Amino acid sequence: MKTVGLVVEYNPFHNGHLYHLTKSKEQTKADVVIAVMSGSFLQRGEPALVSKWQRTNMALAGGVDILVELPYYYSVQKAQTFAEGAIRILNTLSVDTVCFGSESGDITSFYELHEFMTTHKEEWDNEVKKEMSKGLSYPKAASNAFTTLTNESKPLLSLAEPNNILGFHYVEALHKWSKTMRAETILRTKAQYHDEEIQDTQIASATSIRKALFEHESFDQIRTVLPQTSYEQLLTYGKEFHVFHDWEAYFPLLQYQVLSSSVAKLEQIYECEEGLEYRLKETIKRASSFKEWMHLLKTKRYTWSRLQRLATHVLTQTTKTEMSQLLKDGPLPYIRLLGMSQKGQAYLSSIKKDLDTPLISRLAEAKGFAATHDERISNVYKMALPPEIRAQSLYDEYKQIPIRGH
Amino acid sequence: MKTVGLVVEYNPFHNGHLYHLTKSKEQTKADVVIAVMSGSFLQRGEPALVSKWQRTNMALAGGVDILVELPYYYSVQKAQTFAEGAIRILNTLSVDTVCFGSESGDITSFYELHEFMTTHKEEWDNEVKKEMSKGLSYPKAASNAFTTLTNESKPLLSLAEPNNILGFHYVEALHKWSKTMRAETILRTKAQYHDEEIQDTQIASATSIRKALFEHESFDQIRTVLPQTSYEQLLTYGKEFHVFHDWEAYFPLLQYQVLSSSVAKLEQIYECEEGLEYRLKETIKRASSFKEWMHLLKTKRYTWSRLQRLATHVLTQTTKTEMSQLLKDGPLPYIRLLGMSQKGQAYLSSIKKDLDTPLISRLAEAKGFAATHDERISNVYKMALPPEIRAQSLYDEYKQIPIRGH
Repeated sequence: MKTVGLVVEYNPFHNGHLYHLTKSKEQTKADVVIAVMSGSFLQRGEPALVSKWQRTNMALAGGVDILVELPYYYSVQKAQTFAEGAIRILNTLSVDTVCFGSESGDITSFYELHEFMTTHKEEWDNEVKKEMSKGLSYPKAASNAFTTLTNESKPLLSLAEPNNILGFHYVEALHKWSKTMRAETILRTKAQYHDEEIQDTQIASATSIRKALFEHESFDQIRTVLPQTSYEQLLTYGKEFHVFHDWEAYFPLLQYQVLSSSVAKLEQIYECEEGLEYRLKETIKRASSFKEWMHLLKTKRYTWSRLQRLATHVLTQTTKTEMSQLLKDGPLPYIRLLGMSQKGQAYLSSIKKDLDTPLISRLAEAKGFAATHDERISNVYKMALPPEIRAQSLYDEYKQIPIRGH
Repeated sequence: MKTVGLVVEYNPFHNGHLYHLTKSKEQTKADVVIAVMSGSFLQRGEPALVSKWQRTNMALAGGVDILVELPYYYSVQKAQTFAEGAIRILNTLSVDTVCFGSESGDITSFYELHEFMTTHKEEWDNEVKKEMSKGLSYPKAASNAFTTLTNESKPLLSLAEPNNILGFHYVEALHKWSKTMRAETILRTKAQYHDEEIQDTQIASATSIRKALFEHESFDQIRTVLPQTSYEQLLTYGKEFHVFHDWEAYFPLLQYQVLSSSVAKLEQIYECEEGLEYRLKETIKRASSFKEWMHLLKTKRYTWSRLQRLATHVLTQTTKTEMSQLLKDGPLPYIRLLGMSQKGQAYLSSIKKDLDTPLISRLAEAKGFAATHDERISNVYKMALPPEIRAQSLYDEYKQIPIRGH
């Protein structure tokens, strides 16, 4: 069976995702669609709108055959590490082709850029260092360095576009981790990643959908831009758990954590560098919301996402030592299966005997620190649920089994 | 000027406290009343109902001349350490007589008991050890050991009574820390420490008053058992901050802290002994309230207060290392002044030049780890305030100056 791999967050799964999924399957002539999805916390350092189980239901209804989790230690990371984790998992599951959406739409440009970057590694590194010494954030410095390096040749690819950057790192990770997997890309249409308002009646960005839910509390506004199952799953989650997860729901916990931690303890948190622990302490006292705090915290030196990821690591108390233990080389500790269709199940049976990594169905099957940390992350995510529901939900996580699609 | 010292929590200041204060002044013929009061968290491991500032107002109106804070590292401790801290502070302020309420009412019995315990120290220690090896809590073991040791002589003092126990430790601390201070005691009348319902129309226990506020939300019920100022301060606090502090208000933070902390981190918390870190983790997932959690956590081995104090240290992330730094020998880092009358101010001026410990008026004047920890404790206490009020209140703590009475 021919397989296509997708790297997704589905926050939530909308018509744009459905389009990408369908196109990817067509273009690669795949029989089986395998998606690796960020779990509770996402690449930009935010909690997922609804739990991974609701998002798994959405994905299965949309045509994904196998859903596995991108664990926290890869999902809440800069693009390069995020991409590495996703590619490692897809490669472990013997995926033939990874297919990502991009602003470019031309896979050749990604391979060429990777080639160019490999051969110009030293100049590139120097250029980035020079730009960063001006006080710029890494992405901004990288983008400037890229412009300088390529301005005499034709610009191979715009690295100012978020999906192009991710795509570049997928190709880079392929070279590092896989001998056989290939990359393809689909041109992203219409809704841009950062669109804040719903512009179209069919396709809208996930950002604008979340905004419609939080700010306008409008289910009507999002009905037309979501597949039926996504719409229903959102409705169900809201009714059952009385919450959609955003940073504001966690702000009291975060504020409490920063205020009650010693400076020495904050300094041990992953991504807490260059004295940021003092800045965290000083600014959090003055904020009465997450948004307000981020505005107090932000400097030119760090991107919004970088600071949100730091906030996530503070919230989950993930330390530098823990992260290096989780990211250490060697085989992945396990892959957690979230859902599968009948076809997906057949595929997994066929590759099972060659798998060098445990594929687990329940958290209780997992062992070691990765499992302990995994449970911690789920537990912290559930702190946004109302207290009377929380205890039951904390318990359920342990016995939750993968969702079966058709 | 003759001074009497009181060790208080005033949670809240009620007619029973007023009676004790007036009687203490009469009996000792003191001109100046100096009280050392637990700040944000109390000896039984609970948050104070309202902030120390409101309780300072109540105390000044009740006739206290000088109010200073018993810092967290002494206030959230077993009776012995609590008493040591209080006596050290009163002694530093050159108090002549400490006067405490007791179920006994006879100061001679306290001195005699102390004498007896000093001369029977070894037998006593062995007896306590024997009782504890049966799995009993320290207070229960101590009480049994005491009965065994004294059952042939006349029982000097019942150590089953909470205020007698505290009294005993005051006398013990006097012997250790002061050359000049004496102890006296006032017989406690009517309301018992543990009374849960208001029994009398004038005198009620603080426990029953808090219960009336939390469970019956009744201001009418408490009006007659509180001095006017106490009643008004409670009313004002409720109106301004929309909360009275009890453990339930902090339970989400505590649950989050236990869930997000590694077992290794919990083990570093002060008073987390004998594998309690695993028990904390295992039980907190199943609880949806603090009360429910305490019932899951409780064993014969630990008293309710001991476990509540542990919960407080988890909430404030106070580690064993930090506590031993705070409790280290040598002079107290500082004494924080909370309020004073004109007479109190005159007294302080008269002793100022002989003080070997800084007497600070604002947190900003304090230095070193004690000050950092002090601020942490205030900040954590304020996490129960509504978010829109919290930021302002966090800021205010720094510039808050002592309250002036008449």
